[in-house]
Amino acid sequence: MDRLILTNIAQLVTCKGAAPKFGKAMSDAGISEDDCVLVENGRIADTGKTREIIKKFKPEEYKEIDCSQNAVLPGFIDSHTHFVFAGYRQDEFAMRLKGMTYMEILNAGGGIANTVTPTRNMPLETLAAAGKSRADIMLKYGVTTVEGKSGYGLDKETEIKQLRAMKQINNEHAIDVVPTFMGAHLVPKEYKGDADGYIDFLLNEVLPAVIDEDLAEFADIFCEEGIFDIKQSEYYLTKCREAGLKLKLHADEIADMGGASLGAKLCAVSADHLLAVSDKGIADMASRGTIATLLPATAFSLRKNYADARRIIDGGCAAALATDYNPGSSCTCSIPLIIALAALNMNMNVHEIVNALTINAACAVGRQDSIGSIESGKKADIIILDYPSIDFLPYYAGMNIVKTVIKNGKAVI
Amino acid sequence: MDRLILTNIAQLVTCKGAAPKFGKAMSDAGISEDDCVLVENGRIADTGKTREIIKKFKPEEYKEIDCSQNAVLPGFIDSHTHFVFAGYRQDEFAMRLKGMTYMEILNAGGGIANTVTPTRNMPLETLAAAGKSRADIMLKYGVTTVEGKSGYGLDKETEIKQLRAMKQINNEHAIDVVPTFMGAHLVPKEYKGDADGYIDFLLNEVLPAVIDEDLAEFADIFCEEGIFDIKQSEYYLTKCREAGLKLKLHADEIADMGGASLGAKLCAVSADHLLAVSDKGIADMASRGTIATLLPATAFSLRKNYADARRIIDGGCAAALATDYNPGSSCTCSIPLIIALAALNMNMNVHEIVNALTINAACAVGRQDSIGSIESGKKADIIILDYPSIDFLPYYAGMNIVKTVIKNGKAVI
Repeated sequence: MDRLILTNIAQLVTCKGAAPKFGKAMSDAGISEDDCVLVENGRIADTGKTREIIKKFKPEEYKEIDCSQNAVLPGFIDSHTHFVFAGYRQDEFAMRLKGMTYMEILNAGGGIANTVTPTRNMPLETLAAAGKSRADIMLKYGVTTVEGKSGYGLDKETEIKQLRAMKQINNEHAIDVVPTFMGAHLVPKEYKGDADGYIDFLLNEVLPAVIDEDLAEFADIFCEEGIFDIKQSEYYLTKCREAGLKLKLHADEIADMGGASLGAKLCAVSADHLLAVSDKGIADMASRGTIATLLPATAFSLRKNYADARRIIDGGCAAALATDYNPGSSCTCSIPLIIALAALNMNMNVHEIVNALTINAACAVGRQDSIGSIESGKKADIIILDYPSIDFLPYYAGMNIVKTVIKNGKAVI
Repeated sequence: MDRLILTNIAQLVTCKGAAPKFGKAMSDAGISEDDCVLVENGRIADTGKTREIIKKFKPEEYKEIDCSQNAVLPGFIDSHTHFVFAGYRQDEFAMRLKGMTYMEILNAGGGIANTVTPTRNMPLETLAAAGKSRADIMLKYGVTTVEGKSGYGLDKETEIKQLRAMKQINNEHAIDVVPTFMGAHLVPKEYKGDADGYIDFLLNEVLPAVIDEDLAEFADIFCEEGIFDIKQSEYYLTKCREAGLKLKLHADEIADMGGASLGAKLCAVSADHLLAVSDKGIADMASRGTIATLLPATAFSLRKNYADARRIIDGGCAAALATDYNPGSSCTCSIPLIIALAALNMNMNVHEIVNALTINAACAVGRQDSIGSIESGKKADIIILDYPSIDFLPYYAGMNIVKTVIKNGKAVI
């Protein structure tokens, strides 16, 4: 029996049942009366009072971490990233600083294409190694589960390679990886002007291979003006769902296309970005429990207005926050940056922010039954802060105040 | 002879002579043709071509760091902080998120006072230890010199204690500390309504002790509506200069008081904040070579508009960037956050940003003859990035991409 007890916790934040579908408001992350967490064999076995729990065991039967100066909360879940890639685009970033828009850069031959070619050219092992070194950094920020998307291949071989790389990272790294098939990230040059043809290729040639090899849990599509329209997105996502994948979509980022409403209609698990979402889109998502995944680092990096978190949350949606880590529009996996932007530029309070990075993010990756909160039976994915309250998370602006990361019951940072 | 050679440097950025007084535009950080830096006995001995330099020595006569995948630049200098303190104010941060202004919190009994009492109560050794642990983090960000201010005592004993703590940190930690006497941070409750009386106390009772013990290089004052006015600031700074201190001032942060022009008139080394600076203030500073120290994390944390870096730089001022690390208005020492905010929210390009954190910051702490650039004779305070170009600094938004920190010729990170 492998037993760890976190004792005398200054502030235990459980994040139990924050998503609206669990009947609790998002503005309460659940500060517990308890000050002790019992971990056995990688799972949370119990929470309670330190004195009550430790008296059940002899001293040699457990390891102890004293948390009398520390807040304790569930591990963060980065529920929207594209972290397995080759091809940095720091030059393009400089172009954007000079005023070019994302779409202008895309139309000028820049953008995703400049990541696609290097990703196609990079061997699987190298791609996985790059992803693992990025996962090392994520883990330091307290991220214990990360969602990752394919979509830098836009051909069968590379899409599969990206997903295999994620499987390898999941198997060989402490972090858990939730894999998403996102062949529909962009229409590649091979199908220029024929988005329908590309979608058919993805559905007929790539998707069956993804399913055969059990390489993805989610499908995602970039539903956006000039990329894939609503009709194409609906067709594609419906077919992916029929094949057994859960659904996400990049929705209403640049223009209000009705992507959020489409997500709700299809019972997508999440709709992401939402900078241009309409009130109807919010209402539709709220009614279906589709998670609204907000990506402030992307708005920051693209110098756009942020998603209207207040309207979205106050409209009844459960919001998740994620980094969107990718080499184009958001080259960062800094959770502290996300927290600072959400607090200062999106008017989210610290409870909402913590829920958005834990239980709501767990919902956004379909794993709310096993991660995202500190309650008996869930995986012991837990972080311990340097400070005694979660109030320090936005206060220490942009700085990582995660002291210890416990993954499956073991301290890995 | 202690010899280190940085070889095959992918991009050597020297930051030689960027401040206007050295006759070079700020928009050029100086990408060198050279790809090698020779370090001897803690100093930069030479720069040149790798092949030319290494052939002068036998292999056993030097250590080598291969930088073929790395940009190399001078160590960062955080030229405006209040990093030696007790008394976090995370609660006040939450109040500000709800909409209260800095001055409202101050007038409601919050603000600096809630740091003053804990700082008065903390023993010297504990205060120095807290400062050292913060310096550990700064060093990881590539900061090799930090300016630190007193000003959380507002009495003789504590002002001296803060400055002694900085002297101790300077002596015992790798980081160099530039100490600033800032008793004139606020009028303490003991002198409520009698700012003149408090200034006389500082000048007659505290300043002589600071000078006697050689505890400060700079004097600074919070010249602001409701704190110290222009006349009081001029009187105070003039007396401090007469006592042998160089001058800085917190100028035109909340309202345009003419603080920048006062700084120029008194030949202050820097005027800092400048969110509300007038065109005249900019012209006056430019004409005297007063460094404009910009503090984006403070504007970010207070949700204000940023200092108008373009108007200030294009108006001929040499700008420095600093964190303003303090427990009230900017609880961060994240250089990556400063870089991201300067690039994305202040329209500074990466060359300007690098100069603002190196040679211009060296000027802002009066040490441009010994630090701030990579040139023969200067201290070997050097950072090596994870990536081959300084373009990655703003691109990797909010993330620390410093791989190695060399302080006085030794790799300390």
